[in-house]
Amino acid sequence: MTGESAQRVYEHLAEKLSSSEFAPRTLFERFNVEVLCTTDAATDTLEQHKKLRNEGWGERVRPTFRPDALVNLDAEGWRDGVKKLSEISGVEVTGYLSFVEALEERRAFFKEMGAVATDHAALTPHAERLPNTEAKAIFARALRGEAGGDDDARFTAHMLVELARMSVEDGLVMQLHVGSLRNHNETVFGRFGIDMGADIPVATEWTRNLGGLLNEYGNDPPFRLVVYTLDESTYSRELAPLAGHYPGLSLGAPWWFFDSPLGMRRYLDAVVETAGVRNLAGFNDDTRAFASIPARHDVWRRVVSDWLAGLVTTGVVDDEDAREMAWDLAYGQAKSTYRLGVLP
Amino acid sequence: MTGESAQRVYEHLAEKLSSSEFAPRTLFERFNVEVLCTTDAATDTLEQHKKLRNEGWGERVRPTFRPDALVNLDAEGWRDGVKKLSEISGVEVTGYLSFVEALEERRAFFKEMGAVATDHAALTPHAERLPNTEAKAIFARALRGEAGGDDDARFTAHMLVELARMSVEDGLVMQLHVGSLRNHNETVFGRFGIDMGADIPVATEWTRNLGGLLNEYGNDPPFRLVVYTLDESTYSRELAPLAGHYPGLSLGAPWWFFDSPLGMRRYLDAVVETAGVRNLAGFNDDTRAFASIPARHDVWRRVVSDWLAGLVTTGVVDDEDAREMAWDLAYGQAKSTYRLGVLP
Amino acid sequence: MTGESAQRVYEHLAEKLSSSEFAPRTLFERFNVEVLCTTDAATDTLEQHKKLRNEGWGERVRPTFRPDALVNLDAEGWRDGVKKLSEISGVEVTGYLSFVEALEERRAFFKEMGAVATDHAALTPHAERLPNTEAKAIFARALRGEAGGDDDARFTAHMLVELARMSVEDGLVMQLHVGSLRNHNETVFGRFGIDMGADIPVATEWTRNLGGLLNEYGNDPPFRLVVYTLDESTYSRELAPLAGHYPGLSLGAPWWFFDSPLGMRRYLDAVVETAGVRNLAGFNDDTRAFASIPARHDVWRRVVSDWLAGLVTTGVVDDEDAREMAWDLAYGQAKSTYRLGVLP
Repeated sequence: MTGESAQRVYEHLAEKLSSSEFAPRTLFERFNVEVLCTTDAATDTLEQHKKLRNEGWGERVRPTFRPDALVNLDAEGWRDGVKKLSEISGVEVTGYLSFVEALEERRAFFKEMGAVATDHAALTPHAERLPNTEAKAIFARALRGEAGGDDDARFTAHMLVELARMSVEDGLVMQLHVGSLRNHNETVFGRFGIDMGADIPVATEWTRNLGGLLNEYGNDPPFRLVVYTLDESTYSRELAPLAGHYPGLSLGAPWWFFDSPLGMRRYLDAVVETAGVRNLAGFNDDTRAFASIPARHDVWRRVVSDWLAGLVTTGVVDDEDAREMAWDLAYGQAKSTYRLGVLP
Repeated sequence: MTGESAQRVYEHLAEKLSSSEFAPRTLFERFNVEVLCTTDAATDTLEQHKKLRNEGWGERVRPTFRPDALVNLDAEGWRDGVKKLSEISGVEVTGYLSFVEALEERRAFFKEMGAVATDHAALTPHAERLPNTEAKAIFARALRGEAGGDDDARFTAHMLVELARMSVEDGLVMQLHVGSLRNHNETVFGRFGIDMGADIPVATEWTRNLGGLLNEYGNDPPFRLVVYTLDESTYSRELAPLAGHYPGLSLGAPWWFFDSPLGMRRYLDAVVETAGVRNLAGFNDDTRAFASIPARHDVWRRVVSDWLAGLVTTGVVDDEDAREMAWDLAYGQAKSTYRLGVLP
Repeated sequence: MTGESAQRVYEHLAEKLSSSEFAPRTLFERFNVEVLCTTDAATDTLEQHKKLRNEGWGERVRPTFRPDALVNLDAEGWRDGVKKLSEISGVEVTGYLSFVEALEERRAFFKEMGAVATDHAALTPHAERLPNTEAKAIFARALRGEAGGDDDARFTAHMLVELARMSVEDGLVMQLHVGSLRNHNETVFGRFGIDMGADIPVATEWTRNLGGLLNEYGNDPPFRLVVYTLDESTYSRELAPLAGHYPGLSLGAPWWFFDSPLGMRRYLDAVVETAGVRNLAGFNDDTRAFASIPARHDVWRRVVSDWLAGLVTTGVVDDEDAREMAWDLAYGQAKSTYRLGVLP
């Protein structure tokens, strides 16, 4: 591909994409996708999901509850978001308790619409329960536009524990994506806005930060937390030991920069000996590019198979176990982790 | 093995273990163990070791001096421990100086009973000498039950330097196991107590933390410190460069979660190019399960041999050197590091 | 080699080194070195370089501008250095502005003498622009011998941004070597001085620390910063994502302890999938030992070729692409990164 061929290639792709052969639902079938989960703001009406449900696609395309914009007090337009939350949930948010109630109402709606999971992005996995009086006071300050100091950090840390509590109650699997410093390049951010490739990882601490949450809920079988990291040094040091210990914790697939052949191999090398296969969440590709789904799952399946073949060749596992592990990693663990086992 | 076969398997094992064929000393011979070192509280009477000595087993089963419960002022029952130390050492501990004297007396007794090493566990390897007046003041506060603030952390850091000083004087090899956050799961801790698998690693800093100790003793040939880490990112960044530089520092075998085929391979990959083989302490399995000893040494020997075979195949070392390195890593380095070279 | 053969070997080498066959310029030709860059203090007269220029060697042996001793206020003899800077630059340094002017004058001279790059060593890559008034105030305090507190750290962080600004203007490639805690062993330092092998790495943070500098200059095509780290955990977590994003940032070759077969392999494994080949600076050996140059480049070329052969074997890249990548990594990237493309 060169500058000269650009227009020709563009036109070729545009033509393909407008053909019925490349229509989303046709590709969905061709890609042999069983379930696709979107990520949706907690205040989303899920109109498209309603439409899909009416057309019989409700079990195959599901929403995911993402409350970041409400849980982070310093998110842009936070107060408007709270207002919208009141309207859409039917719970008038006047303080912390009604805020929690409104979130619970929304989760119930998402669940009704087929959601199996929630998703949270954070710079750090710090989770720590505040006394209710303090959570109330911070929330009240935020409503008045007077939150400051470490109000935001403490409230977010508290809400992670509260969201875990809700997960125990409603059974939605909790996902946590941690360690990306967003909008690193201010020029790019100023010109093009968020999600333009200028998010850079930072070192992440899990052992102490998740201590409070795991102590409260990590031993409870119904609870499940799936964590994703951008700090590979935590795979063997913190995450695999934590997942090996707490029944409620699963390790998500290698994420973002590490969703690559060598990244996957480093992940398997670092976590399986300590955490085993059954504490991993298998593979979900976390993509924004629909057309990339089959290729990415294919890479994962090939890397997993190659890695397991190495264990067979060196006599660490036998052929039968390797086959079972391959199936688990490629398919079974993702389904069971997200409780999709009831699907065909 | 299933729930159904459990009772049968249990009975089979119980029968085996009660047969003379599986008696500890028979297994000791069958496993071809040369020396086994136990870990013993600094206040232990070493009654069992006395008995073993009288039966001619004194050179094969040796105690190891572990003073953690005395050195950490916030250890449970610390004041009772100090009382016990007074009684058993014959040195009435009334303050810091007599405390040090009592520890020295105990070390002399351990050495007399065959000990070749001491062992210390710490969350961080921070070692820093305090002025004597300050060590005395903190110890006095602790005796009165009034220690607080960072008294414990500072006293422990000071005692690591003092214990290194004692090692220079009595020749006991100092071992430091660092980086495990103990009792992470409060539920498990509350129900079952310590050492129930709920210890999770944290990031560890060696370069600055060990600076004071290594500056004071790391250049002295009689001193030897063997360090064990749970933070693999420090292998190449801190530990291998430190061990390559200071004659008194050796790197312990990959520990705990990393006592595994891939863990061992990562260790060799990360440290040998910088630290060489002669700055490693070889392999000791650190196990609580007697029956696991031969298998764990076997894994180490196989991984080392496979790793060295790779160096031979790629022409980095020749066959003869690889054989010597294999012998050193499997056997020679452990013996020479712990000064057990005089044994048959 | 044994103690016995030492004298014989020494004499053999001494004889060789004094023969014309081993004269530096003969070796230069035999090693097939295209360009060699020395590292020179910012106050150096570059007398030897002048001589080399006059003898027609000016394009092959070039100086590199290293202002650490002036930029670090706590460097030994800092005020004498500033005095020397005034004399040699012809700019009377009476305060911060004339200091900057004198540095610019020196850079112009270095450039005239063939320099293509600058070099900076720092414990941390912290770069942050100060208000001019503050830079002036700190510099004035330092001139009076009254700098204290965090004056030095803040001034150094500021000067890294200023030196980047100068690089944008004069086109000298900026190099940053980060993460070595110098003179760790005080005994060795006291007896033998600096650079005696007692420099030990520490953990390094790049994402936040370089944020200010990269935001100001990282998007500008003329600017180029080449970074070297001793903290391998930052390869995939921070450096490859940063280099993949900012056009102005390149990753230097694996440095110091990691200038080794396995160190090179870990580097390639960790950075290429994210940063690609064109964001790497290729290989420069950073040696103090002239005779080691060909062997070190040879190791790099072999490791790169072996690594690329693995990609070909597993079908990740085809033969043609691998050949191009090998050439880039072995030769092309170093030349283009340092803008030496005009050489034969």
